[in-house]
Amino acid sequence: MKVGELGERALVKLMAELIECKAVLCPGADDCSAIAYGDQYLVVTTDMLHKKTHFPREMTGYQVGWMATAATLSDIAAMGASPIGVTMAVGIPRDTDVAFALDVMRGCNACCTQNGATLLGGDTDEHEELTLVGTAIGSVQQDKMLTRAGATAGNVVCVTGELGLAAAGVKMLLESQYADHPLRDRALTKLFEPQPRIAYGRALADSGAVTALIDTSDGLGLSLYELSRASNCGFFLQGADLPISEAARSVSRDLGDMLTLAIYRGGDYELLFTAQHGLLAAIPIPYTIIGKVTESGMQLDINGVVQELRAEGYEHLTASGPKV
Amino acid sequence: MKVGELGERALVKLMAELIECKAVLCPGADDCSAIAYGDQYLVVTTDMLHKKTHFPREMTGYQVGWMATAATLSDIAAMGASPIGVTMAVGIPRDTDVAFALDVMRGCNACCTQNGATLLGGDTDEHEELTLVGTAIGSVQQDKMLTRAGATAGNVVCVTGELGLAAAGVKMLLESQYADHPLRDRALTKLFEPQPRIAYGRALADSGAVTALIDTSDGLGLSLYELSRASNCGFFLQGADLPISEAARSVSRDLGDMLTLAIYRGGDYELLFTAQHGLLAAIPIPYTIIGKVTESGMQLDINGVVQELRAEGYEHLTASGPKV
Repeated sequence: MKVGELGERALVKLMAELIECKAVLCPGADDCSAIAYGDQYLVVTTDMLHKKTHFPREMTGYQVGWMATAATLSDIAAMGASPIGVTMAVGIPRDTDVAFALDVMRGCNACCTQNGATLLGGDTDEHEELTLVGTAIGSVQQDKMLTRAGATAGNVVCVTGELGLAAAGVKMLLESQYADHPLRDRALTKLFEPQPRIAYGRALADSGAVTALIDTSDGLGLSLYELSRASNCGFFLQGADLPISEAARSVSRDLGDMLTLAIYRGGDYELLFTAQHGLLAAIPIPYTIIGKVTESGMQLDINGVVQELRAEGYEHLTASGPKV
Repeated sequence: MKVGELGERALVKLMAELIECKAVLCPGADDCSAIAYGDQYLVVTTDMLHKKTHFPREMTGYQVGWMATAATLSDIAAMGASPIGVTMAVGIPRDTDVAFALDVMRGCNACCTQNGATLLGGDTDEHEELTLVGTAIGSVQQDKMLTRAGATAGNVVCVTGELGLAAAGVKMLLESQYADHPLRDRALTKLFEPQPRIAYGRALADSGAVTALIDTSDGLGLSLYELSRASNCGFFLQGADLPISEAARSVSRDLGDMLTLAIYRGGDYELLFTAQHGLLAAIPIPYTIIGKVTESGMQLDINGVVQELRAEGYEHLTASGPKV
């Protein structure tokens, strides 16, 4: 059988079974792997991004470097950890402008510097397709690390920032009618220069109130399913409480369209977490309560009508269809 | 200007200048970057390998995974550090056999396990060309870390293992007359499954005798030039003392050919180090003294005739010519 017939998810699952993992959190189980080191956990993550899937022509080199770095730092944030450093391997076609290549490195450096990380390396190679592989290393006190497991029925479920802003950016990019949309710049900046929520992640870890944490890089829907799988719980969301971005509302034809942008598209790189209701006052960052953790089921209440949440997301900017 | 006109070395240099590095050792300066963490240094390295340049059709999936892992662990060894973990991002074409893909992961896992590392991640993506990016993290006591800087005139220069075994493997692979060569299997195993010298590196760091250390992945000649640049010194080698592998001797037409295999080709992944002569007894691993450190100059004595060492190496298995 060929890899293309098997599919990525099934392949990753088979691969993971081959690994003799001696870590606390093994590859594939969470946003990062984690390994004990002194009284800390070192958390580590690697992400491969490439032109066809992740970097549309509208992106500057700076944004390409920023995004590859932000994607990997967002996984550090999703453990409640502090970044230590990032390595970036860049495969670059021969006919790339040197100015563009240097701009990529400027974007990597800026995203590191603004998030308390340092760029620790370090490889460049000729490649047919522009390919960036970012690896981030962070650390977190062992008793403070947050994972996808831990959500308990009765907890509230919360999200930082707005939903669907990056997805609105994709729509504005693809449909010419939005060329002069007043929120276009804002949405494209969110899409191309996402902010890894490092400070938020650390504050959540320190609060003692949070029971599970994940980032929303793959969209709210898929992220909820990941939490559900790891925590063995369900979710009940209040549609009216979803902090759907003004940009997403303004480019939606109807309610279904708007929910698709807000729930089933990725790229926002916000933090989704569950928390003990009685301890919410200990959380010092802005967030929105969007529902509650249940024993089972994945449900969304829209004006009293309850629908099933789907395990559906789009990898942003790919046209290859739903990613399940 | 295009990247292909500028060349990789010049591009890497320009990129490195853009990094606001807060590490002890910054990207490009050594085999790894290093950053203080508690009383240790964390050392980190990343390597991008891909099919066209690194993985000939004769390699099994297992060997592909092993080599990508070994290449990055060899850089950890070259700091005198102990590995903590490795992440491996795998870009894989759709028409790859699943069995091959799983074999890649088996090779990664085996190389980690046999070298005291654990596989910490973790990304697979569809890619036109088989591409592996390995990132290794290690740690070393701060006062024991060995770098390329520190070689001092009067030191001896030493190398572990044999020279030119991997290069002989390349020759045996490319020239049909060696199809039944008795050392072919041995040379190809060295070429496709190099052993990162982790235990040797740690022993050298613990000995207190070693002043500078590097691996020979790019060949003895280029590695000597890197030591020379970092330590601001010269080298004087005794040709008769070079531990040239029997395989390299047996496939060489003449002396020049043999020296090319032994000095100007890479892939052996041995350790090259300089040491204080009076402390050699403290080094508990097998090695060969091949010459001495001088104030300046890069020289090789062949039966009393002194020739200049060239800053020349071949990236193994690429036909793209000398890498300077």
